[in-house]
Amino acid sequence: MKKVVLAYSGGLDTTFCAIYLSQEKGYEVHAVLVNTGGFAQEELERIEERAKKLGVASFKVLDVTQTYYQEVLKYLIFGNVLKNQTYPLSVSAERILQAKALAEYAKSIGATAVAHGSTGAGNDQVRFDMIFQTILPEAEIITPIRDLKLSREEEISYLKEHQVHMNFEKAAYSINKGIWGTSVGGKETLTSDQALPEEAYPTQVSKTDPEVLRIGFEKGEINRVNGAFFADPVAAIIKIQEIAGPFGIGRDIHVGDTIIGIKGRVGFEAAAPLVIIKAHQLLEKHTLTKWQSFWKNQLSEFYGNHLHEGHYLDPVMRNLEAFMAATQTYVTGEVNVQLMPYRFSMIGIHSDHDLMSAKFGSYGEMNKGYTAEDVKGFTRILGNQTAIFHSVNQEKDD
Amino acid sequence: MKKVVLAYSGGLDTTFCAIYLSQEKGYEVHAVLVNTGGFAQEELERIEERAKKLGVASFKVLDVTQTYYQEVLKYLIFGNVLKNQTYPLSVSAERILQAKALAEYAKSIGATAVAHGSTGAGNDQVRFDMIFQTILPEAEIITPIRDLKLSREEEISYLKEHQVHMNFEKAAYSINKGIWGTSVGGKETLTSDQALPEEAYPTQVSKTDPEVLRIGFEKGEINRVNGAFFADPVAAIIKIQEIAGPFGIGRDIHVGDTIIGIKGRVGFEAAAPLVIIKAHQLLEKHTLTKWQSFWKNQLSEFYGNHLHEGHYLDPVMRNLEAFMAATQTYVTGEVNVQLMPYRFSMIGIHSDHDLMSAKFGSYGEMNKGYTAEDVKGFTRILGNQTAIFHSVNQEKDD
Amino acid sequence: MKKVVLAYSGGLDTTFCAIYLSQEKGYEVHAVLVNTGGFAQEELERIEERAKKLGVASFKVLDVTQTYYQEVLKYLIFGNVLKNQTYPLSVSAERILQAKALAEYAKSIGATAVAHGSTGAGNDQVRFDMIFQTILPEAEIITPIRDLKLSREEEISYLKEHQVHMNFEKAAYSINKGIWGTSVGGKETLTSDQALPEEAYPTQVSKTDPEVLRIGFEKGEINRVNGAFFADPVAAIIKIQEIAGPFGIGRDIHVGDTIIGIKGRVGFEAAAPLVIIKAHQLLEKHTLTKWQSFWKNQLSEFYGNHLHEGHYLDPVMRNLEAFMAATQTYVTGEVNVQLMPYRFSMIGIHSDHDLMSAKFGSYGEMNKGYTAEDVKGFTRILGNQTAIFHSVNQEKDD
Amino acid sequence: MKKVVLAYSGGLDTTFCAIYLSQEKGYEVHAVLVNTGGFAQEELERIEERAKKLGVASFKVLDVTQTYYQEVLKYLIFGNVLKNQTYPLSVSAERILQAKALAEYAKSIGATAVAHGSTGAGNDQVRFDMIFQTILPEAEIITPIRDLKLSREEEISYLKEHQVHMNFEKAAYSINKGIWGTSVGGKETLTSDQALPEEAYPTQVSKTDPEVLRIGFEKGEINRVNGAFFADPVAAIIKIQEIAGPFGIGRDIHVGDTIIGIKGRVGFEAAAPLVIIKAHQLLEKHTLTKWQSFWKNQLSEFYGNHLHEGHYLDPVMRNLEAFMAATQTYVTGEVNVQLMPYRFSMIGIHSDHDLMSAKFGSYGEMNKGYTAEDVKGFTRILGNQTAIFHSVNQEKDD
Repeated sequence: MKKVVLAYSGGLDTTFCAIYLSQEKGYEVHAVLVNTGGFAQEELERIEERAKKLGVASFKVLDVTQTYYQEVLKYLIFGNVLKNQTYPLSVSAERILQAKALAEYAKSIGATAVAHGSTGAGNDQVRFDMIFQTILPEAEIITPIRDLKLSREEEISYLKEHQVHMNFEKAAYSINKGIWGTSVGGKETLTSDQALPEEAYPTQVSKTDPEVLRIGFEKGEINRVNGAFFADPVAAIIKIQEIAGPFGIGRDIHVGDTIIGIKGRVGFEAAAPLVIIKAHQLLEKHTLTKWQSFWKNQLSEFYGNHLHEGHYLDPVMRNLEAFMAATQTYVTGEVNVQLMPYRFSMIGIHSDHDLMSAKFGSYGEMNKGYTAEDVKGFTRILGNQTAIFHSVNQEKDD
Repeated sequence: MKKVVLAYSGGLDTTFCAIYLSQEKGYEVHAVLVNTGGFAQEELERIEERAKKLGVASFKVLDVTQTYYQEVLKYLIFGNVLKNQTYPLSVSAERILQAKALAEYAKSIGATAVAHGSTGAGNDQVRFDMIFQTILPEAEIITPIRDLKLSREEEISYLKEHQVHMNFEKAAYSINKGIWGTSVGGKETLTSDQALPEEAYPTQVSKTDPEVLRIGFEKGEINRVNGAFFADPVAAIIKIQEIAGPFGIGRDIHVGDTIIGIKGRVGFEAAAPLVIIKAHQLLEKHTLTKWQSFWKNQLSEFYGNHLHEGHYLDPVMRNLEAFMAATQTYVTGEVNVQLMPYRFSMIGIHSDHDLMSAKFGSYGEMNKGYTAEDVKGFTRILGNQTAIFHSVNQEKDD
Repeated sequence: MKKVVLAYSGGLDTTFCAIYLSQEKGYEVHAVLVNTGGFAQEELERIEERAKKLGVASFKVLDVTQTYYQEVLKYLIFGNVLKNQTYPLSVSAERILQAKALAEYAKSIGATAVAHGSTGAGNDQVRFDMIFQTILPEAEIITPIRDLKLSREEEISYLKEHQVHMNFEKAAYSINKGIWGTSVGGKETLTSDQALPEEAYPTQVSKTDPEVLRIGFEKGEINRVNGAFFADPVAAIIKIQEIAGPFGIGRDIHVGDTIIGIKGRVGFEAAAPLVIIKAHQLLEKHTLTKWQSFWKNQLSEFYGNHLHEGHYLDPVMRNLEAFMAATQTYVTGEVNVQLMPYRFSMIGIHSDHDLMSAKFGSYGEMNKGYTAEDVKGFTRILGNQTAIFHSVNQEKDD
Repeated sequence: MKKVVLAYSGGLDTTFCAIYLSQEKGYEVHAVLVNTGGFAQEELERIEERAKKLGVASFKVLDVTQTYYQEVLKYLIFGNVLKNQTYPLSVSAERILQAKALAEYAKSIGATAVAHGSTGAGNDQVRFDMIFQTILPEAEIITPIRDLKLSREEEISYLKEHQVHMNFEKAAYSINKGIWGTSVGGKETLTSDQALPEEAYPTQVSKTDPEVLRIGFEKGEINRVNGAFFADPVAAIIKIQEIAGPFGIGRDIHVGDTIIGIKGRVGFEAAAPLVIIKAHQLLEKHTLTKWQSFWKNQLSEFYGNHLHEGHYLDPVMRNLEAFMAATQTYVTGEVNVQLMPYRFSMIGIHSDHDLMSAKFGSYGEMNKGYTAEDVKGFTRILGNQTAIFHSVNQEKDD
């Protein structure tokens, strides 16, 4: 019997796939849920229970949150990556890691096929396929939802026929949760002109009194939250989410280019990612040189786009990561963030590596280490080529 | 008698320059105030009155707000330029236009010298000198404050000796106002770790009820505010500032690299610039293709930096402007913005050029214009090189 | 009867298509040869004669050489585009223009289908399809060679069965000729380690005595060859090819990424393109500022790659062209080139816009317009941030 | 007595400096020659002898060729750096390493001043000062030639007065030799329109029979020449120079932007650097993915420019080096180069990491690993956004 590893989440689509692959296609179905920090323990237990009732050959939870951080999130922080200046890539990034974990698991159990529940209209299908075809070039990739183009109703009646009992009610908003943020899709995000209503966001705003949050970084990685040391950056991210989440911070709608060429729009809430990225970015403004910032910005935009489009295994990604990691040598210090309902602002930073120091002069106030004559000379030479250009070409213009 | 054109604002430094240049240096001083939208009529009259009492040979106000928009602001909007992802270049941009206007005025009246009141520790000295040395290569550039390194107290006693009576009290915050934002410097901005207090910001937050603001763009330029047509984008910017300003929107602290190599920090409030840029950017997300966005982001970061550093006359700036203008052909439509105290968010857009249209499929829901098989083939080939790379090199690794 | 426009070259593949489409598929076949400067008049007449014998409904030659220059080649010169620092995109660029001309012709005669003879292993299939699906979204695209995967022998026996008599002998090298160069493929180019033999190149080396060639540019476009004025840049390119070609100049092998992810290798000879690009580039080194050169290099690499991959109709290409055209304002002057068998070198330039002028100082010899003190001040400030960085971080390192 | 470390080459300018600093300025002069591979042992002995006659306190040769390779040349090869597509940065790169070695030596002997013989019109003054002010922020930098603006004749008569006897005859061409090439300046390079004559180049063309040169690379570094293993890449470079130099290969004139804003022109001969870079680049074309090549090109252009302008100690350079080193993981293989008088061409490569392999299909001939349908789907989706763009905006245009 051929083994298939199925990316399983317990939702309608992947439940359909489980039944369909075993009953219609005769596969030995190994359902695997890859957790990137979005599933609580009790949720996982409920899902496992349901999975077992479906008659799958095995059900397995792979927790890849640590790997996710080490292989992707770390670089999204180093790069201050916000796709289109907005979106922390909450979903895009985790799909990659999920696909990798699935592929490696399939290899380990000798599966000859992998299956996922993506439709034919999204980015995830491309991300899954791209990873699978590279890591498992010989494996069959099976995508029943995409291929059969079934409506929700057809899937439900198929499942009912096969004695599957689950909650078939459609949620008003489709939610995807991971450690790097929660995406929210619904009828408004299918339009160009409507915002998501307050109730669409899963997190209730329950904090109203401003708080100061202190985030410590060591070589670009979080190692302290409000003074407490965290050896594990994942735990620190979770802590920051706990603190900042109840303020309703980090909500927005991302509009952008899908891999398949259409424009897509998706809401999200991502308190910790937004606060962390902005804090990290501020620390960099104090500790990196001008050209470090410039090139990191240029490259991290590409890095984010390329990751979003599923090119995680292109070796250029490793090269860009080497660049980004190298920039973090002195990105060490503490950032103070003011949290308020629905918004936050940066207070300032402390760092032993702060390049802004009265020792070298104060902007607009006092020059140290150079004289007025130095600046005059500087300016004369800095503008020399432009002055020559205008001198040469003005004459010609007359 | 040698004529000097003095960049005059009516403040302590330029008042000192006026007296010093005429009385110590024997120049015929022509005081010129270049207005980039920051001075109200009555303020200008007060300044003129004061200037005349100083015994300058002439006082002149040059209003360059329209030129400022046409030659700079337009491109800052096209490029969504926020230096370091934060600062709309409120001051940097206007200095350039002021210097240009002064240089051209100096030429027109046959002045052989130009003077400005910059210190030796800021960016403005470089911006002024760069423009002057290109447009007026033969002119002498005089900077008494930078050269004499006088303290505030020394300037005041000099002026008192010379019978100048003005308000010598130092404001707690130094404010620079223009149509593209108001900068705020003070004791906190000289540190790395302190935010500006509420009272440092000149605009009082007087609106508390949310409002929806509708901004219309035509080829990237604002032509409508809340439904009313504006032939003049400058008037539209002023209108938007009137509407959004009282919400206390667009405040932040910019930290970045000065031209002279030290880090600098400055507060600002810039409601209209921030709202306009974010609205324009959203419209672009719907109307530009992926690579248009990518390259515009890459180039406009350089454009903003190069402008900030005074390189406005480098011909590469004209080339980048040609690129940016060309991208705006279809950036036409209306953007709805939700204004709230201290924050704003984007609701959505309407545009005849919106590339997001159910006609071509809905993200995650429905594919039109292509099939599941198309996506499979797409992905197979899109990931082909990466798959080949891993196939070739994996074997070698073993 | 449904009309199909067939991209026809008179070779084996397109001859097969003509017969197959009319006899098997029942199309009214309109054979169109789009000339981009590679076909001489007599050749075209021979091809027409042959086409008519095949029983096509019509045969038409579209000469798009002028459009080709205006819409593509001009920008390849402005951008000094050599893919992978080597290849002038001889074939890539002309395919785009051929596809555009075919699509517009199909529209004009009301054809509902377009056909081309590409195989499934090359770049041309993608270029043709990309253009067709954008300009003719409703049209059927037919590619018999790609779909049927016929061997050469099968095509020949099919044609013989259908009474087609032509030269069925396979040339040792497949040659594609256009105004921007001739590509040469053969058994060596299918390997990674073999060069093309001398006899593979169609042009004989018949000139042995060195010659000086003078090329005049006006705003980046050629307007003079050896002193003679050319109103038509296409005629100038042809003239330069006549002069430089017999030296065997501009031969090389291009290795690079195909659109479909595999690596490809192709030989070429392109005397005029190489000489023109190198001459244009030298003139730019004298007339552009540092940042004009930098950004033009960065953007033109992308422009060349994007064009190569068939993305000519992406609007970003028009935006990049606007940038490139804007850089050419002062790229006017004359370049002297030394031609020798198999190689050429640049002698120098004359230009009224030359920024290298003893008037502003001589490199390494004499400074004018600034003093030693200016350079010291310049350097002190230019290196200020790096010095601060090392001062701050060295202390920490100890 | 204050100690000064003098960058000493034995030429007129630095001889003048040695006398002037000790006799007029009362310094204890420590003359240091930093060899970057351009000085033969016997030359160094002659220079030492002369130096000692000048009465310097000490004379020292620092051989930094290995450091030069490890800290700079390696990255110039990784990046295929040719400034302005032409110049291997022969001189620019070695100045940096010389300045670093001098600064560290000055520190080690407790010198409070460093001196160099640069004029006020070149790049070297900036490079030396930039390095010195960062590594030795407290040291005095002394530049007698720049400051005194002496003519050659004045220097000579000063030296004669001080009993210095040396060859005062001016060479027709000023030559600077290092392991990475020899620069040649003379009366022609001061013009825009004249080439250097054959006799200006120090290397005689003594080989006329074509030779094949085989260069092996291991992770981007040379480790084999004509089959012989080289543990030391410096020795390999010297070997390649011995083989290729006598062909008169790698000569050209570089025209570009000096750090001080004027344009400069300099001839060079650099057989080994040119052959090595072109060979390395070819190997990369076979072993890197498309986006690895793209970003390495973009970044290495900046790297070369920034190095050329003396910014070697900007930490962004270390970050870019990390990127470049990361790209070299599989740049391993052998390149065959055809050497001929005055020119060379690439024959091809062998590499276990070659991504061009018939296993994955042959360009234009045979597709493997994907079908015609795959390419059709690929193209449909690849061009989807452009097709949507034209569909949306064409309607509006009508």
